[in-house]
Amino acid sequence: MTDPRPVGIFDSGVGGLTVVRQVLDLSPKENIVYFGDTARVPYGTKSKETVTRFSVENVEFLMKHNVKMVVVACNTASSLSLSFLKRCFRVPIIGVIEPGAKAAIRSTRNGKIGVIGTSATISSGAYEKIVKKLRPRASLTSRSCPLFVPLVEEGWIDSKVTEEVAAIYLEPLKKKRIDTLILGCTHYPMLKAVLQKVLGKSVLLIDSSEEVAREMRDVLDAGGLLNTSTGRKDCKFFVSDEPGRFVKMAERFLKKRIECVKKAG
Amino acid sequence: MTDPRPVGIFDSGVGGLTVVRQVLDLSPKENIVYFGDTARVPYGTKSKETVTRFSVENVEFLMKHNVKMVVVACNTASSLSLSFLKRCFRVPIIGVIEPGAKAAIRSTRNGKIGVIGTSATISSGAYEKIVKKLRPRASLTSRSCPLFVPLVEEGWIDSKVTEEVAAIYLEPLKKKRIDTLILGCTHYPMLKAVLQKVLGKSVLLIDSSEEVAREMRDVLDAGGLLNTSTGRKDCKFFVSDEPGRFVKMAERFLKKRIECVKKAG
Repeated sequence: MTDPRPVGIFDSGVGGLTVVRQVLDLSPKENIVYFGDTARVPYGTKSKETVTRFSVENVEFLMKHNVKMVVVACNTASSLSLSFLKRCFRVPIIGVIEPGAKAAIRSTRNGKIGVIGTSATISSGAYEKIVKKLRPRASLTSRSCPLFVPLVEEGWIDSKVTEEVAAIYLEPLKKKRIDTLILGCTHYPMLKAVLQKVLGKSVLLIDSSEEVAREMRDVLDAGGLLNTSTGRKDCKFFVSDEPGRFVKMAERFLKKRIECVKKAG
Repeated sequence: MTDPRPVGIFDSGVGGLTVVRQVLDLSPKENIVYFGDTARVPYGTKSKETVTRFSVENVEFLMKHNVKMVVVACNTASSLSLSFLKRCFRVPIIGVIEPGAKAAIRSTRNGKIGVIGTSATISSGAYEKIVKKLRPRASLTSRSCPLFVPLVEEGWIDSKVTEEVAAIYLEPLKKKRIDTLILGCTHYPMLKAVLQKVLGKSVLLIDSSEEVAREMRDVLDAGGLLNTSTGRKDCKFFVSDEPGRFVKMAERFLKKRIECVKKAG
């Protein structure tokens, strides 16, 4: 049994490429179709209704490419729209929230977990819900960090300003003595060094992109959907805005150059 | 002669309310229809093709409300799309670039002007073109400041971080000894105090929203389009995302509360 159909992955923009990177590492035999909604990015400041409408359109686009599964590689869309997407489409669909929450629960020693994300992700309470369900006695402290995405996109990865902003945002989490922090936005792994510096080495950072890539592989495996065929693998990238800016930023997120990015539609 | 039809004003989001505020001050008899494209905000990181497509749709929406004139209250859309919009629609359409540039040329003493804006506005070269045309011997130094909009939206108007970011962005403009700075984004007037502090009192800040409100009045006057009728004036606000976040931020930009904001479409 082998299923050569591609896996579909979407994000509001370029951040989901951190997930693609992990999928390429962990499931090198899978074909991939990626969609980045760069014309309407970001999602993190927008309403549930709007993000869900956009997400449905994104999955519809991926379905046209005959994907066997969809990974919502965007924390905001996963928080606000995953359950709706699951009801709308027949292929397996997973998001980044549950894999990240599970990993945090496995890792924490003192039961004090932190999560950072966009305004929409944090105010949705999606992480609270799943953590409460899986480990009712764990405590979760959350904080939205709206400046982190623009700081990453500006390329100020290790600037003094970014460290100061991180110190302000993370202060309440430090006070709660969290020992585990979920990076609840696909841009945040780019800030690992500065976050670790501000929090100290004892706090474990959970990168959801690693976790979701593992979950993806497990779902494919369980459903008999793995691609076991050899031969050249295909990784297609589509965006809704002109590809220029995406291509320029992609290398930082994917750690390799992207040759061919097409404008969708 | 009186023309009671409303004036149409659009922006990518909430920033254009700084223009509405000036229009209310200067032309209190005019009815207004405002559209903020909050589902697709921001425009400043997006391509000319995409911003122009969005702008055409925004003007089409305003035209349905029978507007007699359109003000593009967004520097990015004015930079990238104004000439196209003028060719597409019959009503007078003005943007914020030319009024701001004219005011800077009138004001500068040493001929050294600075302009700050989004990435798209600055890389479009729109301010350079107009300044070169109107005053070939003036020198213009430009700088994109992608973090200013998120800092304003985060409400960090007078934080130390914002001052440090401003110091970094404005350094090349200080070195050039500009005596006039065009605030080339409708969010930036919110940062006047910190910009003035970083640049020193001798540098004049040009707020395009004041200038474009004056230009709007002149265009209406010249075309016999002024509304001279008395009676209650109407100011309607529409947005493309759910109104919640817009309403919350609107007060800061408009300096008064908005009661009724509708989702368009």
